[in-house]
Amino acid sequence: MSIAVLRWVEPPDGPAIELLDQTRLPLVETIVTCPDVPSLVDSIKRLVVRGAPLLGIAGAYGVALAAARGDDVTAAAAAIEQARPTAVNLAWGARLALDAYLRARATEHNAAHAALLQARSIADADEKACAEMAAHGLTLVPPAAKIMTHCNTGSLVTAGQGTAFGLILAAHRAGSLAMLWTCETRPLLQGSRLTAYEARRAGLPHRVLTDSAAASLMAAGQVDLVAVGADRIAADGSVANKVGTYGLAVLAKHHGVPFVVVAPVSTIDFGTAEGSQIVIEERLPDEVTHLAGHQIAPAGSDAYNPAFDVTPPDLVTAIVTERGVIHPVTGGNLRVLGAEP
Amino acid sequence: MSIAVLRWVEPPDGPAIELLDQTRLPLVETIVTCPDVPSLVDSIKRLVVRGAPLLGIAGAYGVALAAARGDDVTAAAAAIEQARPTAVNLAWGARLALDAYLRARATEHNAAHAALLQARSIADADEKACAEMAAHGLTLVPPAAKIMTHCNTGSLVTAGQGTAFGLILAAHRAGSLAMLWTCETRPLLQGSRLTAYEARRAGLPHRVLTDSAAASLMAAGQVDLVAVGADRIAADGSVANKVGTYGLAVLAKHHGVPFVVVAPVSTIDFGTAEGSQIVIEERLPDEVTHLAGHQIAPAGSDAYNPAFDVTPPDLVTAIVTERGVIHPVTGGNLRVLGAEP
Repeated sequence: MSIAVLRWVEPPDGPAIELLDQTRLPLVETIVTCPDVPSLVDSIKRLVVRGAPLLGIAGAYGVALAAARGDDVTAAAAAIEQARPTAVNLAWGARLALDAYLRARATEHNAAHAALLQARSIADADEKACAEMAAHGLTLVPPAAKIMTHCNTGSLVTAGQGTAFGLILAAHRAGSLAMLWTCETRPLLQGSRLTAYEARRAGLPHRVLTDSAAASLMAAGQVDLVAVGADRIAADGSVANKVGTYGLAVLAKHHGVPFVVVAPVSTIDFGTAEGSQIVIEERLPDEVTHLAGHQIAPAGSDAYNPAFDVTPPDLVTAIVTERGVIHPVTGGNLRVLGAEP
Repeated sequence: MSIAVLRWVEPPDGPAIELLDQTRLPLVETIVTCPDVPSLVDSIKRLVVRGAPLLGIAGAYGVALAAARGDDVTAAAAAIEQARPTAVNLAWGARLALDAYLRARATEHNAAHAALLQARSIADADEKACAEMAAHGLTLVPPAAKIMTHCNTGSLVTAGQGTAFGLILAAHRAGSLAMLWTCETRPLLQGSRLTAYEARRAGLPHRVLTDSAAASLMAAGQVDLVAVGADRIAADGSVANKVGTYGLAVLAKHHGVPFVVVAPVSTIDFGTAEGSQIVIEERLPDEVTHLAGHQIAPAGSDAYNPAFDVTPPDLVTAIVTERGVIHPVTGGNLRVLGAEP
C-alpha cells in the first residue's frame, strides 16, 4: 500500500500518530492525526484504525506517544487496552511497549525512546511475519484457486501485505488465483469497502458479494478455499474473528471446502483457555439500522450487533502462522508452536 | 396492514392498479399508479411490488387491466410472466386470469370482467390460505419461541397476514413468541426495512441483525425455529427463496434447529422436477456495490448478485401449506398434497 496506514511523526509541536481514516475508504483518502492517547483511543473505537495486527502496532505506538508526552504511561496503556475488548493484539502491543518503557526507566535509560523502539520493532516483525505467513500458506492453495474471504486482512491492517489477504496476494503473484470472492462483511462493509479497494489496487481478479450469497457459491462448487484472519485465538484453537466468520466455517464444512485462518502468533492468547471465554464486543445498533448515515430500519426497531463470533477448532482446517502451519488445530499443536523461539 | 399494498381502482379516465411502493418503505409510504401493463411490469422489475403470493395477485390483476383496456391480453400475460423469472406465482396468477379471459371470450361472455373476477378470487383465496397456513404451522411452534426469519413474508406480500410472517404473528397472538430475529436480508434489506416495519406495527418483540450474525445466535441457543417463505418449490421439495435462505438452512441443520418453509400450494411448481432446474434471477451489481444511492465498493469492483438460492429438501424440516404440513419433505408427499382438491 503506497498510502501509509499508520505513521509516527515528530513535527515541532510534539510527536503524533497519523492514521489513514479507514471509515472513509474507499471513496475518500484522509488522515486523522492523534496528538495524544485519548484521540488515539477514540480513533480505535471508531475503527479509523482497525484489524488485529495493526491494532497491536497502534497500541505500542500509543504507549510510546504517552511516554514522549510525559503522560502517566501505565494509565495510558490501560486505556488503550480497553478501547476494544476482543482483539488480543491491541493489549499485547500496548503491554510490550509498556514493559520496554518500565524496564528502561528502572535502569535510568531513555524510557520514552525505548517504548518507541519497541513499537518500531513490533511493526518490523509484523511485516516479516506477513511474508512468512504467505509463504507457509501457499502450500494450502490449489492451482487456479477460487478463494473466498471475509472482512479485511491486507496492508490496511498490518505493517506488511496482510494475513489472509497477504496469502491471497501471494497466490495471485504465484499465478494460482482464479478468483477472490469478497464477502461484503456487514455491518461496516470492510469487505466491499476495504478488501475490494486493496484487491483493485493489487490487480486481483475479484467480485464482491453479500455475506448471504456465500452459501450458494459454495454449493455451486465455486469456492476452493476460505481464508480469513483472526482477532484472538484461544488456547484450544477457537478463533474469534469478524462476525460472519463462524457461519462461513459451518458452510465450508458442509460443502467440504478447506477453511484456513491466517494470523501471527501474537494473536494466540494462551491466557484464554477456550472459545467460550472470549469476550465478544457488542457494538451500537445504529451500525445495523443505519448505513452511511441513512436510516434503514424503522425508528424504534432494535438491533443485535456483535462485532465478532467464535469458530470452534473442529471447523478450522488449519491455522497459518509465521512459524508454520497448525494442522490439525488442537490445543496441543498450538502449545508446541507457541513454545518455539 | 391498514395500508393497501395492491388495489384495483376505476377512476373516470380508466382502470388502474395502485401499488404501495415497497422500495421506499419504511421511511416513506407512497403509492405508484399503474395505468397499463408496461408500467406494472416496470414496477414488478423494480420491486415496487414483490413477494411470491402478491406477485401472483399482481399478475392476475395485470391481465385484467390489459383486458379492460382492450390490449392484446395474451401478449400482456406473456410480458408479465417474464418480468421476474424465479417466482412461480407471477406466471401462475397471470395464466389463471388469461385462462378465465379466454374461456369467457370463447363463450361470448364479458371476458374483461371474467379476468377481473379471477384476480379477485385469487386474492380472496390467498387471504384464506394465509389464515390456514398459520393455523397448521402453529403446531410446529414451541412455547416461548425464539423464531428467526429472512426477507419479508407478511401482509406486504400477501392478501392476508402473510406466509412465514403470518405464522409468526399467529404465534405472537397465541402467546408463544418470545423473540422474532429479523435477518436484514442484503442487498435490498427486506428484513430490516419491511419485516421490521410490519413487526413494529403488529407489536411483536423483535430485533434486527445482519445476515452473518445469524450463525452465532444459533450457536448460543437463541433460535428455536427458522421460518421462511418460498418463491418456487420444485417437485422434489427443493425451495427457491431469497438469497441467504440456503445458508440459514445449512446453519439450522448444523445446530439442530427446525427449518420450516411456509408457502401456499400455488408456490409448488410440479413442472420443475428438481432444484437444479430452477432459473435463478441474477440482478444488477449496483444493488451490492451501492446502498440507498451511495457507493460502497470502489468504482470498477464487480459484484455477484443472485436474487435467490435453492435449499434442497433434506435441509427443510417441513413445508407448511394451506392444505396441511408436509413432513418429511419428499416428492411423494408433495404430490399427495398437490393432488388434493
